Amino acid sequence: MSSKVYEKLVPYMEKAEALKTALTLFSWDQETQAPPQAAPYTSRMVGVLSSEYFSAAAGEEVRAVLEECRKDEGLSELESAIVKEMSDNAAKLACIPPEEYREFAELAASSTGIWAQAKKNNDFNAFAPTLRKILDYQKRFASYQAGEGQKLYDVMLDSYEKGFDMESLDRFFGTLRENLVPFLKKLTESGVTVDDGFLTGDFPEEAQERIARFFAEYIGFDFGKGVLAVSAHPFTDNLHNHDVRITTAYNDHVDDSIFSVIHESGHALYEFGIPDELTQTPVGAGTSMGMHESQSRFMENIAGRNPAFWEPVYGKLQETFPDSLGDVPLEKFARAVNKVQPGLIRTQADELTYSLHVMIRYEIEKMLVEEDLEVEKLPEVWADKYEEYLGIRPQNAAEGVLQDIHWSQGSFGYFPSYALGSAFAAQLFHCMKERMDFESVLRSGDLTPIREFLRENVHRFGKLKTSRQILKDTTGEDFNPDYYVRYLIDKYSRLYGIEAG
Amino acid sequence: MSSKVYEKLVPYMEKAEALKTALTLFSWDQETQAPPQAAPYTSRMVGVLSSEYFSAAAGEEVRAVLEECRKDEGLSELESAIVKEMSDNAAKLACIPPEEYREFAELAASSTGIWAQAKKNNDFNAFAPTLRKILDYQKRFASYQAGEGQKLYDVMLDSYEKGFDMESLDRFFGTLRENLVPFLKKLTESGVTVDDGFLTGDFPEEAQERIARFFAEYIGFDFGKGVLAVSAHPFTDNLHNHDVRITTAYNDHVDDSIFSVIHESGHALYEFGIPDELTQTPVGAGTSMGMHESQSRFMENIAGRNPAFWEPVYGKLQETFPDSLGDVPLEKFARAVNKVQPGLIRTQADELTYSLHVMIRYEIEKMLVEEDLEVEKLPEVWADKYEEYLGIRPQNAAEGVLQDIHWSQGSFGYFPSYALGSAFAAQLFHCMKERMDFESVLRSGDLTPIREFLRENVHRFGKLKTSRQILKDTTGEDFNPDYYVRYLIDKYSRLYGIEAG
Repeated sequence: MSSKVYEKLVPYMEKAEALKTALTLFSWDQETQAPPQAAPYTSRMVGVLSSEYFSAAAGEEVRAVLEECRKDEGLSELESAIVKEMSDNAAKLACIPPEEYREFAELAASSTGIWAQAKKNNDFNAFAPTLRKILDYQKRFASYQAGEGQKLYDVMLDSYEKGFDMESLDRFFGTLRENLVPFLKKLTESGVTVDDGFLTGDFPEEAQERIARFFAEYIGFDFGKGVLAVSAHPFTDNLHNHDVRITTAYNDHVDDSIFSVIHESGHALYEFGIPDELTQTPVGAGTSMGMHESQSRFMENIAGRNPAFWEPVYGKLQETFPDSLGDVPLEKFARAVNKVQPGLIRTQADELTYSLHVMIRYEIEKMLVEEDLEVEKLPEVWADKYEEYLGIRPQNAAEGVLQDIHWSQGSFGYFPSYALGSAFAAQLFHCMKERMDFESVLRSGDLTPIREFLRENVHRFGKLKTSRQILKDTTGEDFNPDYYVRYLIDKYSRLYGIEAG
Repeated sequence: MSSKVYEKLVPYMEKAEALKTALTLFSWDQETQAPPQAAPYTSRMVGVLSSEYFSAAAGEEVRAVLEECRKDEGLSELESAIVKEMSDNAAKLACIPPEEYREFAELAASSTGIWAQAKKNNDFNAFAPTLRKILDYQKRFASYQAGEGQKLYDVMLDSYEKGFDMESLDRFFGTLRENLVPFLKKLTESGVTVDDGFLTGDFPEEAQERIARFFAEYIGFDFGKGVLAVSAHPFTDNLHNHDVRITTAYNDHVDDSIFSVIHESGHALYEFGIPDELTQTPVGAGTSMGMHESQSRFMENIAGRNPAFWEPVYGKLQETFPDSLGDVPLEKFARAVNKVQPGLIRTQADELTYSLHVMIRYEIEKMLVEEDLEVEKLPEVWADKYEEYLGIRPQNAAEGVLQDIHWSQGSFGYFPSYALGSAFAAQLFHCMKERMDFESVLRSGDLTPIREFLRENVHRFGKLKTSRQILKDTTGEDFNPDYYVRYLIDKYSRLYGIEAG
């Protein structure tokens, strides 16, 4: 039963949620459809709506109501969770002086453009001064938000993944480094080659779209509550649990759009799985970036790149592209989509090397935030680390330090979620395998048991549990990166016929 | 120079404009892309944003500021116009209790779906209770807004077309009825037949879209600032003068999508033509529904259905559809797209019978609002009027009273704008012909002089002038429906070789 104080909070919550939804729709529209010249005009409107969101979510009035609510002992469990989520968010926003927030918003509005231009011209120096400013703002904001004695980078990490800090991430990435770097060396030196030439060719966009829709539905994407569109880089957005949208891009690598759609469908299932009583509230979404990424990477890699996944559906793919794949046996196809190839670009990395790309970014962010690494030295530090861990060295900034958009948006502390997500997925997978014959399910052509496991243990809680709580409750154990390392080494030892030890 | 009081108004104006833009985007999205099951959830958000709009545009605070502004004699001309527009709007909104406004917004968000379902199932009774509720809200709102002794339907009419009421519209439609009903009878009894069979066939959607984009650009639609999408019924939306969006639908009548795109492009030119200093302000849009419709109907009918229009571009159309149109001479094509054929569906009506469809809706709306016609009796009243004026009787609700979306959105008083628009267009056309050799311009393949005339006399004023003011300033005469009647009778007498008198 709702308490009276809580009733006073509802209008603020609804207003903040409605504005957040509108901002999501503007962003979706910008990435998928808006005309080229619209942005400077539309962004004025977006600026106004953002300030409105700020005042609904963190203004003085709502903070006073939240304080009252926190004292009320008659709140339901859900109400308490909403009050806590809104309070945390308000506290984080409110400690930043509005003037600085506005300055940063103005900077951020142009910085992505400056980054894109610098990347295009392969000119890190054109971006460095902007990056320095962005980093300074982010450090300042973190200092406002920091608890007693809390390190700045810990503040940033916590905002993307509650309960994780440098201590736990040093341990996590340490485990990866110790195990994966030597394993990768052994693998690349094994001399085993994988043929994946047939994945590149002339795949008509119309056919790619048809098969993309097929795979989305096969994963469980519900087109009654979802949209598939095209954008430069694939992403997932959602307005609520009955409106979840994914994008992909079609190019001459047929596996790119297929696996990106499987990946985004994994994200989408999470948002479809938010129960009706949570959706359109501050706890009605995936609990963290990392747990979201665990769902997408689970579908893309653990399910989607398993040869058994392809048994019921490879024929369909062959029918769609008879010229390119008609003569390629399933085994050869499944091997090709698991090819390990140390490269320079994170978004094109295979499953094994992916987390090493992330580790490099984590180490560099730590240096930038905690050790005052000078921005100007980034290209060299970046290149050295790629050489050390992946054995290759970028020849320019575009394929090196300028490749990702994140820092230009001020997102420091975000990257680790990508690797954590893969590790969460492996830990969940270990538990899932104890409860079902995973490959038989894949072979059956009906993924319902897998979806049900994820819905039951992850999706339905929204933000009511942190990732660590979800892992504990599901697997009976706190976060443990060993599952991830073991999963990768087992899988690739078998694929490449090399010893695991 | 801005006065100090006006500065206080700006944040309210910006907030109201930003929210209006967000609501437009939600509506565009709903019609073109949103997943089928999203509406009940999204409409909650839309309801919240509508209330926010309400308070920014008509809340106590903004009304107090507006009152101060109205007393300030130091306002610029533009500032005064904005204050007047906002004051009129605020007065209209403020008399509606916010709670009722929100209830209606939520009802309206779902009612369109209910109508669509009822239409699909051909089941008027499934829509009738919703329609009654909508009508009740609209009558109640009009009663709040009505001036001393003002009739409810006059309030509704004025909100779509300032300066028009039942008195002037009775006269307008009276002129049409007296002249067009007997002329149509003469024409249909003339025995003259027009072959248009070749317009129906198998026209691939991809080719239709290609030619649709061609004609949009030919009319002057700028894809740098615009989008063409698909929806059940064609419409135009705009976020500002750098983001204008039109839709069409592709079917087996090739002329449907072509002329709908020419029509919507006419609407779009109006919004593209709003100057930068007006866009994103309350006066930065087309002045009225009727004047908007004059621009679209001008392009569609007066320009687009003129045989001279086709001389530079018919070859392009033939190349696109060689099987269907390769052997059809231009004269035959131009005659076919002007075929008069009394039918049941307004949106498929020819130029001559179109305004009779509108007249029927006007008469029925008057009965619903002023004579308490029961909603349940609508299907029969509708059928009787079609039989009387057009000589045909709908056999079911889908081709009768359920055909239009408008009432499901609460738009009573909107329909007359369609006929007024055609009449405004004819009056503007009369004036345009005195200043240029219209058919030579069409033949030249460059419509710039026509666009310039419309931009110079209509578009650039936004809402700074009413339609009647625009007509007066451009043509030197108040609104005069005779031009429209004369234009139609001249055109169709010639086409059908019958006497005008």
